[in-house]
Amino acid sequence: MTQLAIYPGSFDPITLGHLSVLQRAAKVFESVELLIVHNPSKKPTFSLAQRVELAKASLAEVGAPSNIKVSTLESGLLVEHAQSLGAKAIIKGFRTASDIEYELPMSQVNRDLSGIETVFLAAEAGFGFVSSSLVREVASLGGDVSKYVTEAVAKALQGVSK
Amino acid sequence: MTQLAIYPGSFDPITLGHLSVLQRAAKVFESVELLIVHNPSKKPTFSLAQRVELAKASLAEVGAPSNIKVSTLESGLLVEHAQSLGAKAIIKGFRTASDIEYELPMSQVNRDLSGIETVFLAAEAGFGFVSSSLVREVASLGGDVSKYVTEAVAKALQGVSK
Amino acid sequence: MTQLAIYPGSFDPITLGHLSVLQRAAKVFESVELLIVHNPSKKPTFSLAQRVELAKASLAEVGAPSNIKVSTLESGLLVEHAQSLGAKAIIKGFRTASDIEYELPMSQVNRDLSGIETVFLAAEAGFGFVSSSLVREVASLGGDVSKYVTEAVAKALQGVSK
Amino acid sequence: MTQLAIYPGSFDPITLGHLSVLQRAAKVFESVELLIVHNPSKKPTFSLAQRVELAKASLAEVGAPSNIKVSTLESGLLVEHAQSLGAKAIIKGFRTASDIEYELPMSQVNRDLSGIETVFLAAEAGFGFVSSSLVREVASLGGDVSKYVTEAVAKALQGVSK
Amino acid sequence: MTQLAIYPGSFDPITLGHLSVLQRAAKVFESVELLIVHNPSKKPTFSLAQRVELAKASLAEVGAPSNIKVSTLESGLLVEHAQSLGAKAIIKGFRTASDIEYELPMSQVNRDLSGIETVFLAAEAGFGFVSSSLVREVASLGGDVSKYVTEAVAKALQGVSK
Amino acid sequence: MTQLAIYPGSFDPITLGHLSVLQRAAKVFESVELLIVHNPSKKPTFSLAQRVELAKASLAEVGAPSNIKVSTLESGLLVEHAQSLGAKAIIKGFRTASDIEYELPMSQVNRDLSGIETVFLAAEAGFGFVSSSLVREVASLGGDVSKYVTEAVAKALQGVSK
Repeated sequence: MTQLAIYPGSFDPITLGHLSVLQRAAKVFESVELLIVHNPSKKPTFSLAQRVELAKASLAEVGAPSNIKVSTLESGLLVEHAQSLGAKAIIKGFRTASDIEYELPMSQVNRDLSGIETVFLAAEAGFGFVSSSLVREVASLGGDVSKYVTEAVAKALQGVSK
Repeated sequence: MTQLAIYPGSFDPITLGHLSVLQRAAKVFESVELLIVHNPSKKPTFSLAQRVELAKASLAEVGAPSNIKVSTLESGLLVEHAQSLGAKAIIKGFRTASDIEYELPMSQVNRDLSGIETVFLAAEAGFGFVSSSLVREVASLGGDVSKYVTEAVAKALQGVSK
Repeated sequence: MTQLAIYPGSFDPITLGHLSVLQRAAKVFESVELLIVHNPSKKPTFSLAQRVELAKASLAEVGAPSNIKVSTLESGLLVEHAQSLGAKAIIKGFRTASDIEYELPMSQVNRDLSGIETVFLAAEAGFGFVSSSLVREVASLGGDVSKYVTEAVAKALQGVSK
Repeated sequence: MTQLAIYPGSFDPITLGHLSVLQRAAKVFESVELLIVHNPSKKPTFSLAQRVELAKASLAEVGAPSNIKVSTLESGLLVEHAQSLGAKAIIKGFRTASDIEYELPMSQVNRDLSGIETVFLAAEAGFGFVSSSLVREVASLGGDVSKYVTEAVAKALQGVSK
Repeated sequence: MTQLAIYPGSFDPITLGHLSVLQRAAKVFESVELLIVHNPSKKPTFSLAQRVELAKASLAEVGAPSNIKVSTLESGLLVEHAQSLGAKAIIKGFRTASDIEYELPMSQVNRDLSGIETVFLAAEAGFGFVSSSLVREVASLGGDVSKYVTEAVAKALQGVSK
Repeated sequence: MTQLAIYPGSFDPITLGHLSVLQRAAKVFESVELLIVHNPSKKPTFSLAQRVELAKASLAEVGAPSNIKVSTLESGLLVEHAQSLGAKAIIKGFRTASDIEYELPMSQVNRDLSGIETVFLAAEAGFGFVSSSLVREVASLGGDVSKYVTEAVAKALQGVSK
């Protein structure tokens, strides 16, 4: 069976930082699934369908390898979904020590619930520091975000902030 | 006079991590008061009365020593309440460095206002990483939380998530 | 041209910690502008006009030097405003490592957008740990905040919490 | 080709924390190599040969799976060795945020030099906090370290501290 | 039996930060023992006897309460000494999150070995940031350290740096 | 008088991370002095004279602006030297939160001794994570360090590691 890793998140929208983690994970694992999680309490800027479309367009734009798939999780526990796919690991990118501390308890719970490990990949220093929420904030104020997201995402954000 | 320490928090609901801190504090101090604080801005999952009941049931379930009491603070400053009881210290559990940094300013204010010191006790590594909010989230998605809370709390959470 | 640095923030209300950063920055830079930023999503306790008034009264109360000015940013990107003024730097105070980690991505974006650097000044240990939000919380519960704010601000907070 | 990950370190001596990271990595990757690195500047307590023996005895003692191998790196760059083996990833365990911050620059250099990614695995909360150096210190003072190391290692440490 | 807490360290030399922790601990606990630990690998600036003398002189100078005692630990495990005295807790002061992360594993080991808890007390913001080693370094370069140590210690440091 | 800032350190050897901090500081301040500090206890790889030469060659190589000077501090307190030059600020670059925590106490002492403030500038994400000591270590093992240092420094490191 293919060795699969899941990269879950809101991706509202996907950034070059996410794409870097994803492409590097795709060198480590045979197959990686970008899992866009529906979290109604977060009031996303883009719908689940839009986020999938932006992720796919962005992967094409950066020439991502073919062992990366995009899917969604509409409800339920992440690890149950991961188990049903036979995933070997959950991938989490991190930018700072605070990110890691925030993710540690959930990774412990996920291991307890399913035996699936979380592996942490550092954001690449060059553009990894900028989060989706910061990109949205800068775009909404008319700032240029083309250094942090693909053209597809930059264009979509212009539509939002108009 | 008995040397008393106060362990304040939301306890929405109490976890095995809280119970570990509490029982260890009860070995250090002659008397410890679990103080369940009403904070209307937080929109608790369990009412103050339910949280008291769950705390008492949990203490009984783990066989906690008799020098632990449960009480509530419905309004007002924590340190005024602590002073009225003649408390010697406020207890704060912590899991990570971020927890400590978050608590430091309040502990400074509490000392300024009352002269009462805050002592920090590390969460026990075995089950201490999991917070009340994570327990609620996992339970609401149907995940098994019996590793992090007492049976009484696990049962109460099932009632909520149905 | 005068070498100008901008010290942006909500200042809702200004604290002695802010005033310490500001006065120390005024020794380093020829001219410093306290920039009170309007952020409607934060639901401030004091209006922009009140915050300006409290900042000016507080600067007078502590005998701040004349190279400190107070101004406001009602909308738009901070760095565009800073560029229009010919500012050389943005000043950020910090109390803990977490503060720095929180500010780093925005400082990277601000450099990318404008070439303007962010310089970080440590909060002075004596009273720097207490934030505006903690001051508001303590004041709303009737606690004495005179150790953390000027008399003008303490008086204004009493008006709010009544 | 087998998907291989390298887990490098001094392992002076191997602890239950290391063994936990190793066994969990062996569930994620097809094959894992425990690489005991010779670092003369560190003045190890156990020789490279002893550390290999203790690692092998410990793996047997905990019933480690057969896809874990033990090898050594006597000199040269870790990533050149990893490349010669066709490794897909370097594994680093971490206990705290400080550990991660310490490892980040080296992981960046390793990627720059070889394209090989470092994946971080959190120490398991139960026994993961205790390092080799702390185990050595406690053992040298006559303390019981059987909770942190295998019997083989505990016995070897007794020989040292006598 | 008196409720005793141990405050261990090198105290080479004792600083006002240590004295603040000590005096605040003496308000929380019935009795506190400042335990000056001999650690030959650290090559102390002051001998154990000198450090005791400086601690006693400093306690007198700041008017410390009578429930503080000074003693030494020449060899062996700290927790065995603490157990022999019937101590209820070990006290650790901390200045930053890094301090805490450094102390956590040892506090876990101490609990495992003896059941004795470690309680953490935050350094007081006003003068707590300055460590013994920094005081020694500044004094050796001729800098004024009177803001960080008692007169007795300042005088002793002048003798060293001459 | 010219507004001067001092950027002190070992610079053993200077890296592109240092040069980035230096050039960005030179945009903020009228004049910046790279101060190479002699610290005999650190056993530097390059002599003070060599470090000066490498710094000057590196500044020329990256086309640094003319308001950057190189000088040395052979003995004595940094802040006394800074005062004698009329400096307005000390500059410290930082890569992680741990760096900041390490520097905070010294910055507090420097302010106490002289009134001179320390301003912190974040390392630029692209190449800032790599320290002098890591560069030396990688170079000594034959690794390519040209991504982290100038050609002049890379050449000098080859001479050392042969």
